[in-house]
Amino acid sequence: MFRKLIPLDKARQILKQNFSPKPVGVERVPLIRALGRILSEDMTSPMDVPPFDRSTVDGYAVRAGDTFGADEDKPVVLKFCGQVSVGESPNTFVENGMAAEIATGAPLPKGADAVVMVEYSTRSDENVFLHRPVSKKENLMEAGSDIRRGQKILKKHQSLSSRRIGVLAALGVTEVDVYKRPRVAVLSTGAEVVEPGQPLPTGKVYDINAHALGAAVLECGGESINMGIVPDNKDQLKAAVKRALNLADVVITSGGVSVGPKDLIPQVVDSLGKPGVIISGIAVKPGKPTTIAVVDGKLVFSLPGHPTSSLFMFHIFVRPIVCKIAGRTEETPPVLNAVAATKMFSARGRRTFVMVSLTYDKAGKPFASPVPLGLSGAITTLARADGFVEIHEKQQFIDIGTEIDVHLFSRNR
Amino acid sequence: MFRKLIPLDKARQILKQNFSPKPVGVERVPLIRALGRILSEDMTSPMDVPPFDRSTVDGYAVRAGDTFGADEDKPVVLKFCGQVSVGESPNTFVENGMAAEIATGAPLPKGADAVVMVEYSTRSDENVFLHRPVSKKENLMEAGSDIRRGQKILKKHQSLSSRRIGVLAALGVTEVDVYKRPRVAVLSTGAEVVEPGQPLPTGKVYDINAHALGAAVLECGGESINMGIVPDNKDQLKAAVKRALNLADVVITSGGVSVGPKDLIPQVVDSLGKPGVIISGIAVKPGKPTTIAVVDGKLVFSLPGHPTSSLFMFHIFVRPIVCKIAGRTEETPPVLNAVAATKMFSARGRRTFVMVSLTYDKAGKPFASPVPLGLSGAITTLARADGFVEIHEKQQFIDIGTEIDVHLFSRNR
Repeated sequence: MFRKLIPLDKARQILKQNFSPKPVGVERVPLIRALGRILSEDMTSPMDVPPFDRSTVDGYAVRAGDTFGADEDKPVVLKFCGQVSVGESPNTFVENGMAAEIATGAPLPKGADAVVMVEYSTRSDENVFLHRPVSKKENLMEAGSDIRRGQKILKKHQSLSSRRIGVLAALGVTEVDVYKRPRVAVLSTGAEVVEPGQPLPTGKVYDINAHALGAAVLECGGESINMGIVPDNKDQLKAAVKRALNLADVVITSGGVSVGPKDLIPQVVDSLGKPGVIISGIAVKPGKPTTIAVVDGKLVFSLPGHPTSSLFMFHIFVRPIVCKIAGRTEETPPVLNAVAATKMFSARGRRTFVMVSLTYDKAGKPFASPVPLGLSGAITTLARADGFVEIHEKQQFIDIGTEIDVHLFSRNR
Repeated sequence: MFRKLIPLDKARQILKQNFSPKPVGVERVPLIRALGRILSEDMTSPMDVPPFDRSTVDGYAVRAGDTFGADEDKPVVLKFCGQVSVGESPNTFVENGMAAEIATGAPLPKGADAVVMVEYSTRSDENVFLHRPVSKKENLMEAGSDIRRGQKILKKHQSLSSRRIGVLAALGVTEVDVYKRPRVAVLSTGAEVVEPGQPLPTGKVYDINAHALGAAVLECGGESINMGIVPDNKDQLKAAVKRALNLADVVITSGGVSVGPKDLIPQVVDSLGKPGVIISGIAVKPGKPTTIAVVDGKLVFSLPGHPTSSLFMFHIFVRPIVCKIAGRTEETPPVLNAVAATKMFSARGRRTFVMVSLTYDKAGKPFASPVPLGLSGAITTLARADGFVEIHEKQQFIDIGTEIDVHLFSRNR
């Protein structure tokens, strides 16, 4: 009746040996829809940015040599030779002794090599008086000084923020190649679960997992496919998991993985393809019954029915894999150093994860306290937690006052 | 020609006096589409979760008093009186001296008050041998122990994460009221800007701002409306800003706010309604020409044309407002304590924001270095930065080795 639980590190190793997460494909999306997507190729600039020498001030484009010795009281006098506006291709040539009026952002006319700020100039008809000298390249942003043509500007696997989208727009890019979002099917089982919105007979509970896991899939860049609630019946489960494997890149089931006679998921999944179940029960708390299978190259995660256990196991096992399939290798979940506000105990022989909430003392130092009501059936445990603390299987407890790492949940708690 | 720049704190105060950001409305969305949305009402539980006393183990439902004195060698013997499966409404009644088989998650039958784990039981026909005593409520999750009926379970302004969506599913919720996303119109001006994808004549540059600002709007929970590039012509600008004000809750323009003759935005915006321009030029670096107007109750942010300045001013001024209109009051941008890796200088008399990138020493201590190429025209400055450091107008520099606060940009750098 008891199965031998696999230590967490060993389970991770077995998973690694049996499955290498790889992006499932690439698609081209318009830049305007690319926020949050993951680049599938290095981006090299096809052009210089700025594309020409630009003035960074309003003033006069000159030859720097001509301004030598200019002074508040003894201005240099140059001949006005035209005007360059923003956005236009200059048709003046600045010769020795000449100055062209230039606006901020306008292209430097040929012949000129610097710009004197308008604040240090006066003008009288064709004479331009300059009261300060400039050195070569002063008040200029040179062509290619921001981005050089041929420069690698963004890298494969980087996620596109507004700031990176700005960089791509600067290069005139309108479409980018990004990794396809992994499709993740989410399927609930259990005689007790009822779809929210339906009446709730005695003995039944609403299906939390389909919704929480589906949303968790979206949070890590996947597309979730809700397969609904499947009855505890071998044929129906088999048909449903098969359909899920056809539709999706990864399948998640919840419920039906304990050791009871109605816990059919492991045998059903195992029957669908090779190598089948590779991990059946992990020495962790919460999440012990978690079963992992590889079916003809696709992963099936069978998580416990208890909502906290299943969502937590999603964070530990499924999320890193979905991120990798999504090409999201930049992702590193944030860790905060905090002080244990109470003694925290581990479950004997199992890697124990304690959900904690954070409070701060006056100096801003964070303290971690276990979220009360540790029953793994409680959905609010996770919702109330800011993160979790890991206690190694060889460790019996974390003492009060110990410095500990808190692994934080995502930005939206 | 020079206008008097308004100190940053004063500008914030003027903005506050002239505009109170409020959510623009509420909409009902299906739970399955609610990830990342912001609750517009407190959520009170209409039911107990779990809805009934549930067994947390496989075993026997008993009266705790009957198990008193049970021992490995001297078991208590009770009469088998039926079986309760998961998901069913129990029809057995557990009387004194009786035990009903019960599965994990199944509802406790009436009469029973505790469950003995199957590991500590043996059974022979109608006799159940229990080798350990239990106390009342042992191995049970009581009705309402996770969430009590009538309990406030989520609060107005909270953002819906996967964990919170799980909580709502537990209550049978299928739809939630959330704040409408603010619509933010983004409009570019400038004779030099060209839509990405078009050919680029000499003197022109691609329009970065529409894309970067549009994506930044999405990042803070708004909907962006791209109004395109509007020529530097008073009538056309007036018509475009008017249209933007009709379509959107907030309008952002970029370019055309300096002091040149073609910088028409401030007068155009000012002519559209009362009170008109309330802030014209701020003593900050970057972002000095930023102009802010209130036109008949709607905000118009006129940002500089330089991409780094405009996107940075978005972070400083626009983002907090859009967040508030989106109902996103939970949001606090993350701050990291770091060490200044070099001396950083301020611009005299202006609040100076230095874009920095972070490096870590072996002990994991973060060091902040200014991102090279500080020209405000450079779009890559922001893309390369991890965050920014603020230098007060009264401060001349931050010395090397000083502990400083780095305001981090969003997760996707």
